[in-house]
Amino acid sequence: MKTENKRITDLFKIKYPIIQAGMVWVSGYKLAAAVSNAGGLGLIGAGSMYPDVLREHIQKCKKATSKPFGVNIPLFYPDLKEILEIILEENVKIVFTSAGNPKLYTKFLKDHGITVVHVVSSVKFALKSQEAGVDAIVAEGFEAGGHNGREETTTFTLIPMVSEKVAIPVIAAGGIANGKGMLAALILGAEGVQIGSRFVASVESSAHNNFKEEVVKTQDGDTHLTLKELTPVRLIKNEFYQRVQELYQQQAEKSELQELLGRGRAKKGMFEGDLENGELEIGQVAGLIDEIKPAAKIVQEIVAEYNDACSTLADRKI
Amino acid sequence: MKTENKRITDLFKIKYPIIQAGMVWVSGYKLAAAVSNAGGLGLIGAGSMYPDVLREHIQKCKKATSKPFGVNIPLFYPDLKEILEIILEENVKIVFTSAGNPKLYTKFLKDHGITVVHVVSSVKFALKSQEAGVDAIVAEGFEAGGHNGREETTTFTLIPMVSEKVAIPVIAAGGIANGKGMLAALILGAEGVQIGSRFVASVESSAHNNFKEEVVKTQDGDTHLTLKELTPVRLIKNEFYQRVQELYQQQAEKSELQELLGRGRAKKGMFEGDLENGELEIGQVAGLIDEIKPAAKIVQEIVAEYNDACSTLADRKI
Repeated sequence: MKTENKRITDLFKIKYPIIQAGMVWVSGYKLAAAVSNAGGLGLIGAGSMYPDVLREHIQKCKKATSKPFGVNIPLFYPDLKEILEIILEENVKIVFTSAGNPKLYTKFLKDHGITVVHVVSSVKFALKSQEAGVDAIVAEGFEAGGHNGREETTTFTLIPMVSEKVAIPVIAAGGIANGKGMLAALILGAEGVQIGSRFVASVESSAHNNFKEEVVKTQDGDTHLTLKELTPVRLIKNEFYQRVQELYQQQAEKSELQELLGRGRAKKGMFEGDLENGELEIGQVAGLIDEIKPAAKIVQEIVAEYNDACSTLADRKI
Repeated sequence: MKTENKRITDLFKIKYPIIQAGMVWVSGYKLAAAVSNAGGLGLIGAGSMYPDVLREHIQKCKKATSKPFGVNIPLFYPDLKEILEIILEENVKIVFTSAGNPKLYTKFLKDHGITVVHVVSSVKFALKSQEAGVDAIVAEGFEAGGHNGREETTTFTLIPMVSEKVAIPVIAAGGIANGKGMLAALILGAEGVQIGSRFVASVESSAHNNFKEEVVKTQDGDTHLTLKELTPVRLIKNEFYQRVQELYQQQAEKSELQELLGRGRAKKGMFEGDLENGELEIGQVAGLIDEIKPAAKIVQEIVAEYNDACSTLADRKI
């Protein structure tokens, strides 16, 4: 591998430039440790954890792997200060921040020796993140599951547009679930990939088995980016989603949408397995996922398919 | 080049698997002939032409190139029968159909010795097209300019999902404007690419110079897929677009939207260069287009960048 392709593996001290996305109700220490042990970078998703739960997951992750791992923190988290204290106390070395202003906490984290990555969905925020001093950015396309940008820029166009504008390494996210996707993302200008949906349907994911099986069944056209007035989120079009759409058709107020959402919809769907009444966040790439597998096997298969694609495509010159 | 990668060039008898999209008000005979002469496949866009204008463009194209070229026909075209007669009378050998049921005219065209390609935006319609007997399909992602599918599936996820389901060759469209994009699309499973936006900003495109210059200025987040109740279309967010959005906010009826659209908005914007009151159809990839160039140079640069990217693959193994 050429030097210029090693920035992500060097930055995190990992073997493969594959990052497992921090996801609410899905990525606890079991998944993160499994991915890190397999040579990628596992992330604990703090977004759905009370502070003491997060501390427990960090402590367990340290016991489950000797490899680097990180924590993803959505910056709208209500107990953010408490979370940041835990990050320092538990000596977490890698933090991915998302859904907020990168200028708020990057310096604070960097001053404490932490590697900081911010998730963006536009060139504007990529530049803002670089200016804030982050070590790398995740550029996430419209096809990604869960919360998403308002610009609706897809992975295929976002990655080259961001890569040509920033000097720091770009990690592609949204639509990637296998080795060919990883190679395509790297050809478009990324230096690493962040993979979410594929790891939802892993043995070690904390998602309810009903949700994992639903991900396996999901086909193209089965997800939709909705709730754009609140925070845009890509969901499976289940009964709960239909109720959201009905409210739109009745020209409901934001407050009515918020009331329907309540606080527990994501937990109900993804963690408790209520496929009708819960919120099921997944990316379009679910259409390519057809089996629940151990996380290590997922990483190995991605690497094998990636290397195979590198070999066969050298013949493709025209 | 390996045998399995030659299906598109063999099918159309062209040098490079690069197809220039048939686009309303943009792709007349000048652009089509220039692309065909450069080794790609040029398409005349019938969608914005009266029958006699189309005939004239076909005749002029035959004089301007000895290479294969084709015609793109949107199947909602009002004088469709007349158009099909002209196709036969003028001995056009390649037809791309779009925006309609592939079962309607594929057999008729194939019976007359014409190579038929249908444009789709979902696995379902890809399978339906294959069943109808088309020779290849264009799978077009959400990021593409102009009219688009309701499923909102992006190029990055649509191409592998379609490729693994159909036996006929898949041509990727949406988000591709350079050689790296072409290689990424081929890695994801396509065997050729259809490129639209990049050729809008070409010397030979019939687009008004104001529109070409606007495409060069367009950045990420500047386009949006709108008018989903009528036919979804990706537009630059200009004054006309804002008026459409205002109508939505006032919960306008479909008929009011149709009235605002009128018949001449696309012509006004793209052909007459009225950047305020016209409809400006372009893809997200406009953010990567920064210069108006001759079509032949665009083809040559895509091929050179593609081959260069292929060369780097062996070094990319991990």
